[in-house]
Formats: sequence, C-alpha cells, structure tokens
Amino acid sequence: MILQKHITINEILQMEQRQRATFINSLGGFKSVCLIGTIAEIGLTNLAVFSSIVHLGASPPLIAFIVRPDSVDRNTLTNILETGYYTINHLNETIYEKGHQTSARYAKEVSEFDAVGLTSDYKDGFLAPYVKESTIQLGLQFKERIDITINGTVLIVGQIQHLYFPKNCLCEDGFLDLEKATTITCSGLDSYHKTQRLERLSYAKPNTQIEHVKLKYIE
Amino acid sequence: MILQKHITINEILQMEQRQRATFINSLGGFKSVCLIGTIAEIGLTNLAVFSSIVHLGASPPLIAFIVRPDSVDRNTLTNILETGYYTINHLNETIYEKGHQTSARYAKEVSEFDAVGLTSDYKDGFLAPYVKESTIQLGLQFKERIDITINGTVLIVGQIQHLYFPKNCLCEDGFLDLEKATTITCSGLDSYHKTQRLERLSYAKPNTQIEHVKLKYIE
Repeated sequence: MILQKHITINEILQMEQRQRATFINSLGGFKSVCLIGTIAEIGLTNLAVFSSIVHLGASPPLIAFIVRPDSVDRNTLTNILETGYYTINHLNETIYEKGHQTSARYAKEVSEFDAVGLTSDYKDGFLAPYVKESTIQLGLQFKERIDITINGTVLIVGQIQHLYFPKNCLCEDGFLDLEKATTITCSGLDSYHKTQRLERLSYAKPNTQIEHVKLKYIE
Repeated sequence: MILQKHITINEILQMEQRQRATFINSLGGFKSVCLIGTIAEIGLTNLAVFSSIVHLGASPPLIAFIVRPDSVDRNTLTNILETGYYTINHLNETIYEKGHQTSARYAKEVSEFDAVGLTSDYKDGFLAPYVKESTIQLGLQFKERIDITINGTVLIVGQIQHLYFPKNCLCEDGFLDLEKATTITCSGLDSYHKTQRLERLSYAKPNTQIEHVKLKYIE
C-alpha cells in the first residue's frame, strides 16, 4: 500500500517560486531532452537545451516545441524567426553535462557551442549548425509560430528536412531505436536518465490480446 | 566511429503511411506517457493513452497536450470540452500493457476502464475519474483550446487543480522523483522503457562548474 500525498492548486500557488518551478516541471512525466542549434544572420551560433519537444504529426513530418520569449532561450527564437532554420540534436550519456550547461545565461555575443565545448557541424547545405557529438540530428524548417496567450509562451512548429541517425538503429517497420542510439531522457529541470526497454507492444485492437514486438533491425 | 545514415524530407514522404508514422513518432526523443481520464455528461467514462504531453509553465501551473480530433482520441476531446475537467495519470511498469490497450478503437459506448481492466477513482469532489492503479495522478481544469491549422491537431491547455503522488518521492527543493514513483517513459508509438538516473545537475551559470545534486527527500 503506497501512502499518497494530496496537494491542491492553493498549496501550489503558495510555494516559493523556484521550488514551484522545480515541482511543476516534474509533474508531466519523463521528457525528450534535446539541444536546439541556430545561427543569427550575422553568423553567431546559439545552442540551448529544451525539454518541451512534442510530436505533432507524420504527414507532413512536424515537430513542435515550447519556448519562453523572456528567458535565456530568446536567441533561439530570434534566430529561428530570422533565418527560418534550426536543428534538434538528441542528448546522450556522453554530452548531457555540456548540454545542461547551455542553460546558463551567457551574454548574447557568446556562442554556447564554444562556451560548453560542443562542436558545430554543417552539412548537406543546411544553414543551421548540428551538434557533432549528438548521434541523432534533425534539420528543421520553421513553419509556424503559435502564441499561447494564457502565459506568454510560444509554440514553434517545424518540418523535418534532414535526419541523421546511427545506421544500426533503424527497424524494418520504421521504428528508430533511440535506446540503441544512446539517447537519454530527463525529468524536472535537471534530472537526466538513461532507459531500459520493457518491450514494444503490437498495434492495439478491441478484444485482441496485445503481443510483444521483436525488433528487426535493417542491416 | 558511428556510421550515420542520412534521410531527407523526400524519402520520408515516399515511405508507406504506417511505416512513416512509426518512424516520425520515434524522432522527437523519449516522451511522457500518461492516461487521460474523462467522463461524458451522460456519465460514460473514457480513458486514452497519450504521449504528447508538454510542460507549459509553473505560474500558473499549466500542462498541455496534443490531440488529433479525427482519431480514437476524439472522446477525450469531446468530454473535456463538454465538462471542463480531466485527469492525467502516469503510466508505470505494472499497467503499461493495459494503458497501451486503451489505444484500440473501442465503440463510443464502451468505457476503456472496463475494457482494459483499470479502475476509475473519484476523490475530493473532482468530476473526472483518476486511474486507481497509477501512482501519480493529476486533476486538471480545461483552460484553452488552440487549433494548429497546419495539420488539424489541437493543443489542449489545462491548469493543475489536484495532485496525488507517493509520499516518499518529494524532495525538499520541490523535485518529484518520478523514477522512485515507478513512472515509465515511451518512444515511438509502442515502445515502453523504465529509467535509470544518471544524475541531477545544479543550476547552470556561466563560468561555473555544474555539480551533482544529491536528492534530499522530505520524510
């Protein structure tokens, strides 16, 4: 028997600001954690860690993320709106400390690539810099900015133009094995976790027993 | 040296539809995976698994998720708009198969609680049903519907009204230890994973070495 604690909105609103931020950021579950790479028109690069990435749709292939315009992420938003392109780079076990360090409030003229010691990588004519040390890299074209008026955040929608991933991680049915690619997850504002697969499950249908799905990699 | 594979938007668009859905759903990284519980005005309950949950802000405490109006999730959206309340229940290792089974296309008059064998739980006067077998349960009030016109999806924004979690999982600084609460994560459409903490890291500042943060639980 697990003893549960009950907290209401009034108790949440009475928490000290930083404690509340830490608390509420924990509640939504484990999150995707990626580095978003951009470049300003004047050529200065920017790199920032985000845990607010969400799948939007497959046809066309769209990914969205939430950004706070009044935070340290502001260069990311400015650069995306200025140039129309950005990269999403999965965090992995070897670079998560450096990834976390990009959340520091560096001066506007500092590139976080240099400040934290990650390598910018340009390829296939794409404008925005990838993170060389990341094993799954996406190149995105900005599609839409949606303002969320209730708290002044912004949803940025982008379409996948390029995708790079380790050759041995793709399965025949289209599943990309993130765990094999060493991608990690996060919780709250600062907790990083590796994963261990329980299993893949078959497509669910009414009155049909779901089954374990074996991963069949493309050689 | 990891051999990388490069795929472009044109190759993605040429994939078979289900393969593309599986593929694109894998790309955004590990995701939160939760059961959303609702009730229709006529009293019929609905339960559906979602992996499109995103933290929106702490002041006020807001959580959002993406829903596809033309999918099996439609009862979730209808019920939320009808009643104004819903629950978010973390998936854990003991209920993930049942959680996955809620994605089957049950007839409108079937409650997924009954169909998959999970228990609806009403408490503290809240209208919508929680999942009794879930260890972290959130009660939300609907705040805003934002239509994402580019692909017909909808962002539903809700404010946390009630929160239940295991007593031994809260830390002094507000961090809630999801791993200790047995919450799991997912990737793609059907892969479930437990986690193993690498570490918590201190608040990042320029030119300051980030440090390991020890978890101090409230007794």
